[in-house]
Amino acid sequence: MPPASDDPISIPLRPIREADLITPPDVTAASLRSALTDLVELVGQENVDIVHPERLMKDSETSYWNAPKDHDMFYVVDKGDFVPCAVVRPGNVDEVSKIVKLANRYLVPLWPISRGRNLGYGGAAPRVRGSLVVDLGGRMNKIIEVDGKNACALVEPGVTFGALYEHLQQNDLKHLWVDVPDLSGGSIIGNTLDRGVGYTPYGEHLTFHCGMEVVLPNGEVIRTGMGSLPGTNTWQLFQYGFGPYHDGMFTQSNFGIVTKMGLWLMPDPGGYQSYLFTFEREEDLPKIVETMAPLRLANIINNAPSIRNTLLDAAVIKSKKEWTDSDAVLEGEDLDKIAKDLGIGRWNFYGALYGPKEARDIQWKAIKEAFMKIPGAKYYFPEDVPKDAVLHMRHDTLRGIPNTYELGWLNWLSKTPGYFGFSPISPATGHDAVQQYDMVKKRFDEFGFDYLGTFVVGWRELHHIVCIVYDKTDPVRRQKARKCVDLLVEDAAKLGYGEYRTHLCLMDQVAGTYSWNDNSLMRFNESIKDALDPNGILAPGKSGIWPARFRGRGFEYPRAHKL
Amino acid sequence: MPPASDDPISIPLRPIREADLITPPDVTAASLRSALTDLVELVGQENVDIVHPERLMKDSETSYWNAPKDHDMFYVVDKGDFVPCAVVRPGNVDEVSKIVKLANRYLVPLWPISRGRNLGYGGAAPRVRGSLVVDLGGRMNKIIEVDGKNACALVEPGVTFGALYEHLQQNDLKHLWVDVPDLSGGSIIGNTLDRGVGYTPYGEHLTFHCGMEVVLPNGEVIRTGMGSLPGTNTWQLFQYGFGPYHDGMFTQSNFGIVTKMGLWLMPDPGGYQSYLFTFEREEDLPKIVETMAPLRLANIINNAPSIRNTLLDAAVIKSKKEWTDSDAVLEGEDLDKIAKDLGIGRWNFYGALYGPKEARDIQWKAIKEAFMKIPGAKYYFPEDVPKDAVLHMRHDTLRGIPNTYELGWLNWLSKTPGYFGFSPISPATGHDAVQQYDMVKKRFDEFGFDYLGTFVVGWRELHHIVCIVYDKTDPVRRQKARKCVDLLVEDAAKLGYGEYRTHLCLMDQVAGTYSWNDNSLMRFNESIKDALDPNGILAPGKSGIWPARFRGRGFEYPRAHKL
Repeated sequence: MPPASDDPISIPLRPIREADLITPPDVTAASLRSALTDLVELVGQENVDIVHPERLMKDSETSYWNAPKDHDMFYVVDKGDFVPCAVVRPGNVDEVSKIVKLANRYLVPLWPISRGRNLGYGGAAPRVRGSLVVDLGGRMNKIIEVDGKNACALVEPGVTFGALYEHLQQNDLKHLWVDVPDLSGGSIIGNTLDRGVGYTPYGEHLTFHCGMEVVLPNGEVIRTGMGSLPGTNTWQLFQYGFGPYHDGMFTQSNFGIVTKMGLWLMPDPGGYQSYLFTFEREEDLPKIVETMAPLRLANIINNAPSIRNTLLDAAVIKSKKEWTDSDAVLEGEDLDKIAKDLGIGRWNFYGALYGPKEARDIQWKAIKEAFMKIPGAKYYFPEDVPKDAVLHMRHDTLRGIPNTYELGWLNWLSKTPGYFGFSPISPATGHDAVQQYDMVKKRFDEFGFDYLGTFVVGWRELHHIVCIVYDKTDPVRRQKARKCVDLLVEDAAKLGYGEYRTHLCLMDQVAGTYSWNDNSLMRFNESIKDALDPNGILAPGKSGIWPARFRGRGFEYPRAHKL
Repeated sequence: MPPASDDPISIPLRPIREADLITPPDVTAASLRSALTDLVELVGQENVDIVHPERLMKDSETSYWNAPKDHDMFYVVDKGDFVPCAVVRPGNVDEVSKIVKLANRYLVPLWPISRGRNLGYGGAAPRVRGSLVVDLGGRMNKIIEVDGKNACALVEPGVTFGALYEHLQQNDLKHLWVDVPDLSGGSIIGNTLDRGVGYTPYGEHLTFHCGMEVVLPNGEVIRTGMGSLPGTNTWQLFQYGFGPYHDGMFTQSNFGIVTKMGLWLMPDPGGYQSYLFTFEREEDLPKIVETMAPLRLANIINNAPSIRNTLLDAAVIKSKKEWTDSDAVLEGEDLDKIAKDLGIGRWNFYGALYGPKEARDIQWKAIKEAFMKIPGAKYYFPEDVPKDAVLHMRHDTLRGIPNTYELGWLNWLSKTPGYFGFSPISPATGHDAVQQYDMVKKRFDEFGFDYLGTFVVGWRELHHIVCIVYDKTDPVRRQKARKCVDLLVEDAAKLGYGEYRTHLCLMDQVAGTYSWNDNSLMRFNESIKDALDPNGILAPGKSGIWPARFRGRGFEYPRAHKL
């Protein structure tokens, strides 16, 4: 796994002309220059990269492992839209606090990122053009503590799932498992704050975090939970502390910058077995979900299994062109053929059992009996499938071993891929799964996208993760992707479904669907925002929350359907 | 179980003289009279009880099942200290909103309660004398929905654990279990908001809640999580929604009044077995905790077990006088004798196994092997012990069956008992358990209290629940109780321990121990409080959070050690 490098697409401060600076709203070029000069004084020139618009617009070679910090790697709007004026790398919480105070003086909006791998939802890019990206992960990447006895850790924003995994392997802490999402290069803190999930029994990352340190928009630093008790011995052991429990309000929000976070680690359960069930027919989806829901609810399946369609697996292996000569949306027989070639089904349920063999046997019996009732169902263990099968990849992921190839499906259509996520939440019923699938399929047919998707089954809900891939160098396909998801957000809301997470360009729209009682939740968010951030400097527009300074000035992102 | 009655210790509006009204700060008697008149117009005279000071001060016959709404049933300070001007029973969320707006007009502080059973921590009583108690549970007690398939419910504040249990039994929903705390008469919402816990695998009530409706201090109503999406079908299925996740900030706080809440219910696990391990020696405590912690961490013990001392069990059965002629603090041989009489140990671990027999057998084998290594350990199942043994009571509680007799220990010393809770959090280690126990025992010896306590073992921490009981009619004992806990809060903080919950009269002190970075967390709480509640009308002083109007005016409760 190549190390993440500092972003190469930027240049040092001095050579840039004032006129070339990308200024944020309400800030003149001269004032920004002055702010950047102060910033350089604060953290050192080597830790400030000024963004040069010309250089930025070149399509440089960037990969997941070398993700840019100054734009959305998978841009779906104009590449120059969501770009910062500069990227700064603070070295510690005190510098973060000082950067926040500086931003208040100059009214420069900040956009904090951990590793900037919010893929499909905007990556590292800021919502407001000209913001200053605060790249916390650049230098603040210490694993502060791992408590092997109590199975917990305290980390900085730059610590990736992969880095923590490696640390445990190399420090006699192999009895602790890390829950990893689909890839390992993202920040544990960043993923948790965007409410990402993984696939072991500790997959609900927010549920399994414990304690935060947060820099507020006025530069003050707080610690949540037990962390506020001087000399505390339970900051990473007990989540709540005394009085209001604030942690959730710092997720998907612009109320603070999280600079440290605790998390719980799963003790080695004493055994592990991954498995795959394949189902032959597209129409099996409701039966799969109806079979799974009670097992999941009863915790017999005690992690988040995924139900992947044929093409998502096919795309991990090779591109569309390598599978078929057709440019059309793949349907029916095309898909059956690919499924057959791969030895998988039209739906494929990847799961795992945790614990000693005798306990796994009990679970497996219940699971096997239930799913094998679906006609045509087959099951496999890793030893039953070819070396390049997706089951091997999921075997690692479900075991908490980071892998690097999940995103193979990105290259389905092009070697300059864009990925745009659409992820509504629905009840875990067969009816809803079908309604979700039909809703997406209809729009995908209309816009000419192959359906690549997963249903991730939470305790009582489905995360429907729909992957729209396109060639990012093609403005027509980008626009289609945007328009398609824009309409899907609308379709979903009409059916009572809301998104759990979204791309920068859809934040206003998605927030707008949570409109109960004349948008009272947004007014509540705005009250808090204005109290904590009167100058409106922290991540304006994040999750559709605009500070007073920005409201009523047309900063909402235009709806794609009006294009 | 007798039904909870409306509070009898109050009189209707008309007969009271203005001069007898208990006025809150900044409100004249005339203004309060006008506010109460408006209130009567709003909700009807039958739903407003004005508190008459004379009548209040009589020690009426109140029991847990008939808990007063106008004072702390277990008052530890002067009975007249924490009393409201009146109690109002709104009938719906719209009336709650209107009451909040009325309070803003008159500057009358509100103190919302659900059932008012916050026993040991202030009961129904308001922090600020003269507040208006908003008795949500009085009329808003509907079970709005139980979803038998998805195992969740939506309830109003008046719904008790017992009422939900009964509802499930009577409506063909016996496959769903309710997690109950030690008693069943408390509100599900109230308990969750004070971050109470129960003893089944769903015992962490906040973790297992899902979605809230909240009236804000300005009277606006919001719904959290997926509840803000009009036509939502996942409000009780997925906790987070989109954007900041606010629910935690409405717990132990004065930022809003929760009028509806969703919760998850545990599906019948397919089998159940309670058990008791007894341990002979006081010195066994660290071994018990060290044996338990890894089993709890690995989820082999997958609920919160409790480790109770001899006297807590003894006190459930009969009073101190019935056990001994001694008035002294009971020690050593006295305790051994009682333990022997009861057939229990000096420490007693009550636990349960959930699931089909073959799965329970695996867990039991690991648990039995581990604990039986402690010399003198014995184990029992319910069929092995006498009819009146505490194991039968815990058998029900751990199974989610409400019981009515847990609080037998209240009568340890007197038939007019007071109970004052002290509940610090510590790491789940033997060292910490001993240090906690020694810390409490030393102060209890100093002040002459028998130690009645439980260690409830969470996933990675101990809730040490210490029960101070006294005769509430004896001002000297009350003062000793207060002084003792006051000093214990200080002792605990010095050792890095903080309380997870506390009594009204200790809220300022306990909040003061969470003082990291020059009390930055409290300043943060105050910023939010002032933004949401500029008039300072909602539960001023709750968890030590005072709105601007009250700050700097000496409203903090005096420290008992200065008495």
